Amino acid sequence: MFAQRTINLNSSFIRDILAVTQQPDMISFAGGLPDPELFPVAALQQASMRMQQQLGNRLYQYSETPGLLPLRRHIAEQLADPEVHAEQIIITTGSQQGLDLVVRCLIDPGDKVLVEAPTYLGALQVLRANQATLISIPSDEQGPDLEALEAIVQREPIRCFYTVTDFQNPTGASYSLERRKGLTALAERYNFWILEDAPYSALRYSGDPLPSLQSLLPERVIHFGSFSKIIAPALRMGWISAPREVIKVVEKLKQAADLHSSGYDQQLVLSFLQSGALEPHLEQIRSAYGERLEAMATALTRNLSDSLHFTKPRGGMFIWATLTSNESTLELFRAAVAEGVAFVPGEAFYVNGESDNSMRLNFSNSSSAMIEEGIRRLATLINDSSRRENTASALAY
Amino acid sequence: MFAQRTINLNSSFIRDILAVTQQPDMISFAGGLPDPELFPVAALQQASMRMQQQLGNRLYQYSETPGLLPLRRHIAEQLADPEVHAEQIIITTGSQQGLDLVVRCLIDPGDKVLVEAPTYLGALQVLRANQATLISIPSDEQGPDLEALEAIVQREPIRCFYTVTDFQNPTGASYSLERRKGLTALAERYNFWILEDAPYSALRYSGDPLPSLQSLLPERVIHFGSFSKIIAPALRMGWISAPREVIKVVEKLKQAADLHSSGYDQQLVLSFLQSGALEPHLEQIRSAYGERLEAMATALTRNLSDSLHFTKPRGGMFIWATLTSNESTLELFRAAVAEGVAFVPGEAFYVNGESDNSMRLNFSNSSSAMIEEGIRRLATLINDSSRRENTASALAY
Repeated sequence: MFAQRTINLNSSFIRDILAVTQQPDMISFAGGLPDPELFPVAALQQASMRMQQQLGNRLYQYSETPGLLPLRRHIAEQLADPEVHAEQIIITTGSQQGLDLVVRCLIDPGDKVLVEAPTYLGALQVLRANQATLISIPSDEQGPDLEALEAIVQREPIRCFYTVTDFQNPTGASYSLERRKGLTALAERYNFWILEDAPYSALRYSGDPLPSLQSLLPERVIHFGSFSKIIAPALRMGWISAPREVIKVVEKLKQAADLHSSGYDQQLVLSFLQSGALEPHLEQIRSAYGERLEAMATALTRNLSDSLHFTKPRGGMFIWATLTSNESTLELFRAAVAEGVAFVPGEAFYVNGESDNSMRLNFSNSSSAMIEEGIRRLATLINDSSRRENTASALAY
Repeated sequence: MFAQRTINLNSSFIRDILAVTQQPDMISFAGGLPDPELFPVAALQQASMRMQQQLGNRLYQYSETPGLLPLRRHIAEQLADPEVHAEQIIITTGSQQGLDLVVRCLIDPGDKVLVEAPTYLGALQVLRANQATLISIPSDEQGPDLEALEAIVQREPIRCFYTVTDFQNPTGASYSLERRKGLTALAERYNFWILEDAPYSALRYSGDPLPSLQSLLPERVIHFGSFSKIIAPALRMGWISAPREVIKVVEKLKQAADLHSSGYDQQLVLSFLQSGALEPHLEQIRSAYGERLEAMATALTRNLSDSLHFTKPRGGMFIWATLTSNESTLELFRAAVAEGVAFVPGEAFYVNGESDNSMRLNFSNSSSAMIEEGIRRLATLINDSSRRENTASALAY
């Protein structure tokens, strides 16, 4: 009744548990959401007013498939690393669409794709929906295990490697400079594409920025940018920057896929960017999220230093914490929800859904006070396993 | 270097000639654009103001994959034919994305899909991008040749039939009631899906509405709606309505493809619809486009009745005209552009790009005075072939 590829479609665990985690009084570290209280509402309202006044009825017509040229120019000149030409950029409906379009252009069913273990859930969904064969590469706080990676690319043809180099979802880890250089050297030698997903790169709270993989190997890296985390997710605005020959093919597919992304939202983002509102907004959210990261790291250390370990990331939206015991965090999740605190069990981020004793904790969408209370609730559960067994059995799902 | 499916990607002839047809002083009947002068700008500006005031920061967060429930409810109750449940609706980034998602869920490479000859160019692009094997069915002013269709579905398994039943792009033709009933009876008997694309259904200028295919066979028809022609294309807002089991699968693919369509634009369209602005706007554009249709039909009859024939449509945005000679309209197109008038040569709308003596003429995006002047220029060329040969040879493309 349906196409083969639909067999591989699975709904996101995170989206499935959304209803549970949105119950009143729930402290949710489960989502990957920016804090709506911090959205640049006033600047967006001004940008909206301005574009409507300036453009009149021109705001509402069909426009070009790759996106508005002034917006692509702005990204190329001011947001891309390295600076690229506007012709190397396509505006997409969030970076998620960028990923889907590129994977559709690169991957035939069964083609092999490397991903980190763990990795971004939405990338696993896209790759599965496009019938890629997924191979996991172990990674640590410095990035992927390059020896393991080379052993694989030596042995068999690999089409591409998907990665989040800065403040990864779910682990928060960032590649060291050495690992960045090593990875791009392997891509050049063994001739595979790197898909560099960079939604969190601007959310750095400490340390100095490191060069993107694209800046190290522009001819083999396809880079995905997003305004979702730094302006507003509802606008679904992202971009691809890549070698011109890739963009040409992706543009044709995008034309078939949706003609173009919302011209209205493109103008809104352009007007916002042109007003100079991005930089002060970034400073504000970096400061707020940085404090919340501190609050969560401090609370974890104070309450749970014997029961779990974690590495404090230097940016992004997540802390990845691993229990010192081998207990499944899926079990713990059920008990935690009953106690009014939610997180995402680690197994959601592995290719084969391996059972896992890790968890992803989001710190961007809760106040520091909520974070302290949530970690306190979690600590009570983790440090008192008898209590956990009692509550878990009372849950019906 | 790229996936197999990219071999089938082709850019739209219409988009490729856009630059030529946008030259100053060009009278273009080539695009498929609504007239920007008629966009409901004031009502959209009020809707924008209202949603920003009412929603504040809630306007900017992630939202659900199938689309905002109040918008899906409004479509289900007030725009769908027949009335369907909100759970049978997914909001898409234009109906073009709806088509792409559904084709990806239904079609494996090589699966056979029936289309009319001629048919909508964007559907051909989507189907080719998804590696469908296309089979053309001849059609006339009443709809597809059902005997020819039955002969094919008897012989081999057919996955689906793609159609625009009301005021087709490019021909303007609408299915008769008899043809609608006959087609749905065949779909039921031979068990194929019907993809019913309905972007123009609300743009009726004469005659009574006929039942949609979906209302005749809800369990086998997947229906595509669009706000592009009746509100504004830049918003890229469309929807799929279909049996629940189809929607469930499409929703999973949409989650992987872009998480959701712009929540900002969904709220804008919802606010516009809730204000009651759609119906008076529809009356206005029906009246204006209806007058332009009259102007074009009258001018064609007056200037070209010996050289081409056409059937005046009862709605939509296009007249399909066929030369009485066998001359290629692609040749004529080159000469016409040099004379300052553009149309789309018919061959763009056929599966195999057959050379053709037809042309698609858009009447929605030119004033009646421009239409008269444009048809006069065209008539001068068509009625004086020696003049045509002189100008055609002067063109470099």
